[in-house]
Amino acid sequence: MEIQFLGTSSGVPTRSRNMTAIAIRTRGARHWSLVDCAEGTQHRLLRSNLSPMSLRAIFITHLHGDHCYGLPGLLASAGMLGRTEALSIVGPPALRGMIECVMEATQLTLPYPIDWVAVDALAHSDILPDLRAHATKLSHRIDSWAYSFTEAAVERKLDIGKLKAGGVPAGPAWGEIQQGRNLVLPDGRTVVAEQFLLPPRRSRKAIIAGDNDTPELLALEAAGADVLVHEATYTEAILHKVGPEPQHSSAAMVARVAEQAGVPNLILTHFSPRYLDPKQGKANVLTLDDIEREAREHYTGTLALARDFARYELGKDGSLHPLP
Amino acid sequence: MEIQFLGTSSGVPTRSRNMTAIAIRTRGARHWSLVDCAEGTQHRLLRSNLSPMSLRAIFITHLHGDHCYGLPGLLASAGMLGRTEALSIVGPPALRGMIECVMEATQLTLPYPIDWVAVDALAHSDILPDLRAHATKLSHRIDSWAYSFTEAAVERKLDIGKLKAGGVPAGPAWGEIQQGRNLVLPDGRTVVAEQFLLPPRRSRKAIIAGDNDTPELLALEAAGADVLVHEATYTEAILHKVGPEPQHSSAAMVARVAEQAGVPNLILTHFSPRYLDPKQGKANVLTLDDIEREAREHYTGTLALARDFARYELGKDGSLHPLP
Repeated sequence: MEIQFLGTSSGVPTRSRNMTAIAIRTRGARHWSLVDCAEGTQHRLLRSNLSPMSLRAIFITHLHGDHCYGLPGLLASAGMLGRTEALSIVGPPALRGMIECVMEATQLTLPYPIDWVAVDALAHSDILPDLRAHATKLSHRIDSWAYSFTEAAVERKLDIGKLKAGGVPAGPAWGEIQQGRNLVLPDGRTVVAEQFLLPPRRSRKAIIAGDNDTPELLALEAAGADVLVHEATYTEAILHKVGPEPQHSSAAMVARVAEQAGVPNLILTHFSPRYLDPKQGKANVLTLDDIEREAREHYTGTLALARDFARYELGKDGSLHPLP
Repeated sequence: MEIQFLGTSSGVPTRSRNMTAIAIRTRGARHWSLVDCAEGTQHRLLRSNLSPMSLRAIFITHLHGDHCYGLPGLLASAGMLGRTEALSIVGPPALRGMIECVMEATQLTLPYPIDWVAVDALAHSDILPDLRAHATKLSHRIDSWAYSFTEAAVERKLDIGKLKAGGVPAGPAWGEIQQGRNLVLPDGRTVVAEQFLLPPRRSRKAIIAGDNDTPELLALEAAGADVLVHEATYTEAILHKVGPEPQHSSAAMVARVAEQAGVPNLILTHFSPRYLDPKQGKANVLTLDDIEREAREHYTGTLALARDFARYELGKDGSLHPLP
């Protein structure tokens, strides 16, 4: 599984960080999905290897502008590129009306259909062939959700010892068995594939959360996940200064929940523009290092602070690696 | 008068060109105005000297997405910056409903008022203190307008010869007279300021047009203008290939009208993404040089092809100069 960040700022863009948009796909797949679509996401795509033509689905976590104002432009550009394949859009129920209002006023007609899925109906939908998507309600000033993506199918490995012991001859038969197909051998014996396959590894699972001031709401979901992507808009010190009204999380709040849930990988994002990139940092200014330091105090797993365009691979063993 | 291009591509962004947004202001003024506001305009502003805090008015030429999808994000960001000053928005009547629909769905409340002005009512409004704005209807797939901006007041020069001949002593009195104020001299004589001022120079006038397939509609307006900014989406050859349905102008069409109207300066913009920047140009590809070459065949005035971030000054003598 691959996760790429197309924007990591909260509220407004900075010169180095756009607002939220995150791409996810299974390694090697042509199709990919997008979680959130801030203004300027299509511009970010121009500088990535991701095309609006192979985008299968868009998941919107919540309807604040810094998470969805790029949607009309991305839809329009995909149309101008000549897309004809259906696109699924999952989001809060009010999303569809808003986009249709914009499309009508700007006389935007698309050469491809949109399959609208209200987030509440996601459980009954089958959006992606390779990932099962699930939504968890969060706590924010506006209805907000986290999306979990779990591998839908895990490839099985042959139990070579058992195959040899059972006298199943190597060759095309082994390939059939690995695909889970039962067969009859030349000598007339019936082979039940399941008996010659090793137990499957656990399906990988990634959670990408929207804005949220109560990371505990994800404790259960995170307990079975390999990676949690969550906002850490500020440090505790700034959160106390700003007050609770914006309903965001501090680095410490998220780190504590991730630690307690035992999620092995945590990626923080959605940073307040007041935090400069460390390389820009002069004395007495806030930088992303402050967020990282605070998170490390409470979390012992693999921690990353997302940067625009950063790509991560979640390996089959559940380990997280940055990709070049 | 200064004009700065924040985007010069039509339809979709390219890696070097954003879609339409053009800033205009009188030289040295703190406030500025924006004509069109494509997605990503606020990102362009981050790389300019223009701030959403000192933006006085936004004029939208037409409601195609590549001219207005950046509006909600720019409004939101101005709010997050703490703007309280009213902002005027001039545009097609359907614009207000669309923006209010987006604001409602995304729970966007602004700490400043918006003065909505439907383009048809612009004649009865007094939007800018320093520029008189006027709209001319164009011809496009969707209702489209050109905005003309004419200096509202022209500073007057003293008739030094007459002042000396008339025995008006140099000093504070001359300053009063230049401001147009009548006064009584120490010797009791009354001075009528108007009698000691040279005739005013002509007010400068710039036209910034929206998408349009009939530049002739601007012939009358352009006859009194110093500069015309107009789309030249393609060359004649490509226009004939694409066909008339998109309702855009070729470089030749615009250049001919500008020549006939005698407008001394012409800036072309809104180039199809199929035209590469000349420096990227390989053999057998289309570049902006093709557009420039075609325009020069029909126009003998000062011609410029706009680039993103390019700034031009329209001097008091009506000449156009690029600014560094």
